[in-house]
Amino acid sequence: MHTDLVAALDIGGTKIAGALVDGGGRLLVRAQRPTPARQDGETVMRAVAEVLGELSGSPLWGRAGAVGIGSAGPVDASAGTVSPVNVPGWRDFPLVDRVRAATGGLPVELIGDGVAITAAEHWQGAARGHDNALCMVVSTGVGGGLVLGGRLHPGPTGNAGHIGHISVDLDGDPCPCGARGCVERIASGPHIARRALEQGWRPGPDGDTSAAAVAAAARAGDPVAVASFGRAARALAAGIAATATLVEIDIAVIGGGVGKAGDILFIPLRKALTDYATLSFVRRLTVVPARMGTDAGLVGAAAAALSRAPDATAASR
Amino acid sequence: MHTDLVAALDIGGTKIAGALVDGGGRLLVRAQRPTPARQDGETVMRAVAEVLGELSGSPLWGRAGAVGIGSAGPVDASAGTVSPVNVPGWRDFPLVDRVRAATGGLPVELIGDGVAITAAEHWQGAARGHDNALCMVVSTGVGGGLVLGGRLHPGPTGNAGHIGHISVDLDGDPCPCGARGCVERIASGPHIARRALEQGWRPGPDGDTSAAAVAAAARAGDPVAVASFGRAARALAAGIAATATLVEIDIAVIGGGVGKAGDILFIPLRKALTDYATLSFVRRLTVVPARMGTDAGLVGAAAAALSRAPDATAASR
Repeated sequence: MHTDLVAALDIGGTKIAGALVDGGGRLLVRAQRPTPARQDGETVMRAVAEVLGELSGSPLWGRAGAVGIGSAGPVDASAGTVSPVNVPGWRDFPLVDRVRAATGGLPVELIGDGVAITAAEHWQGAARGHDNALCMVVSTGVGGGLVLGGRLHPGPTGNAGHIGHISVDLDGDPCPCGARGCVERIASGPHIARRALEQGWRPGPDGDTSAAAVAAAARAGDPVAVASFGRAARALAAGIAATATLVEIDIAVIGGGVGKAGDILFIPLRKALTDYATLSFVRRLTVVPARMGTDAGLVGAAAAALSRAPDATAASR
Repeated sequence: MHTDLVAALDIGGTKIAGALVDGGGRLLVRAQRPTPARQDGETVMRAVAEVLGELSGSPLWGRAGAVGIGSAGPVDASAGTVSPVNVPGWRDFPLVDRVRAATGGLPVELIGDGVAITAAEHWQGAARGHDNALCMVVSTGVGGGLVLGGRLHPGPTGNAGHIGHISVDLDGDPCPCGARGCVERIASGPHIARRALEQGWRPGPDGDTSAAAVAAAARAGDPVAVASFGRAARALAAGIAATATLVEIDIAVIGGGVGKAGDILFIPLRKALTDYATLSFVRRLTVVPARMGTDAGLVGAAAAALSRAPDATAASR
């Protein structure tokens, strides 16, 4: 049987999405369940099995030659386990073995969700054609992944590119991760909103205190809202510049809710990059919004699986 | 003719060293000239040509199948040019073409000096056997290089691993590179000494105000000297942790004069690493002193060249 498709799973704290994906990145069959995130590990696994069960009911299932999983982290690709922060029932949960068993022994490729988004942007999105790229998601948290030398760089455990938890302010505010001054602690949506509120910004009549509301206020000229995005932009710029200085990337792609803020984010970000990316070999670095939509996690997981499926057309690795 | 050797050049602001090196990393023939760093570019090139001329006078020269160059940066491996900060006569100087011409057309491999040190430590030193490593030189400046997935990662221009100029304090002191709060601006030898002097440390009767003198004072219990090394250790820890979080390294190797400070540096550094390297996949990171001596630049340049010399036993790439 010709195995020209892969199964993809995108596992987050809110939903578990699955799809059968072809070598061109098209999602041919989909399935989805809410993540029973507060329940025990077997209950969460049951939701995964239901998604896979629904996919395997498709007449196309027999053409699936591998499974790709992009999971909320941390993951451990070398051990085949996941410990998503927002799914406490899964700690060192042997997801790879369980998915392999549930699919009759298909090869399984596990990567972190930031790495999956990166695989998608590199295959079909804003990082396409770039051999050295950082792709980020800036929303409730800050995640990311790297393409180096034309290939996805998941690292030995599948977590590389974790830019949200590098410190750009070594004496800064404590981060829940245990460090101080992490990019996420300054630039995530909740921290953009928190900083604006602390500095005196007040929401409109709808009471919306999200980063999107701060962005709207900034676009209307509110100086406190502008300043909070400016601070986030500096932290992102320092982190992106650090990444470029360490591994030589030529593009940074920013997705997620904060990434959708547009000029309010990108104008100060591009300006701050000129302050922090100063060495000759990083000066040509550009930063652009992400192009992939909500299917990025599935498309990226598929890209990882295609690299394992011998018959499929693996475009990205 | 069997080409089982390579020629190596180590080009710095003080000296230009050369050697013929075998597949086991042994330096069989050596040559050296002072760098005429304040003179024009052709004068500097003449010193390089003299080193090559001396090597080519050896009966072993005919066995050299490639040339490896580790140069003070920035370099541009893709263009084959170098612009060492401390050699103003060389700006975008076409060193690769000139060395190729001077050696009758041998293939030439150019990398930055931090990358060369890394190649040496990975081949024969403290990073041997580690597939993912950061190697650093902490002395007058702070440089470095990366091994990723078992291979040297010079990046497209040969400058990857430039950890000295990542910002770990985005509001910190201005760095000559143009950014703020760079690792080098906090952790280099001159800045360790400057900070100690500013805080009231005074040198002994010999008037020695080097970082080595501050290290001696710290070992004797001087609290200001201890604090200055502690601050350097935190900056190094934040930078090393950022690197591990971004690309998943499991060892950091520290050489250079400051790296020789011993426990005065390594005890606070290891403690600070537990503060900044907090995610599960970076917690096993270790930090150790370099093992290679003053020949590290030559050995590393040879390692890079061996990767190009088809007949030689390339151990490192």
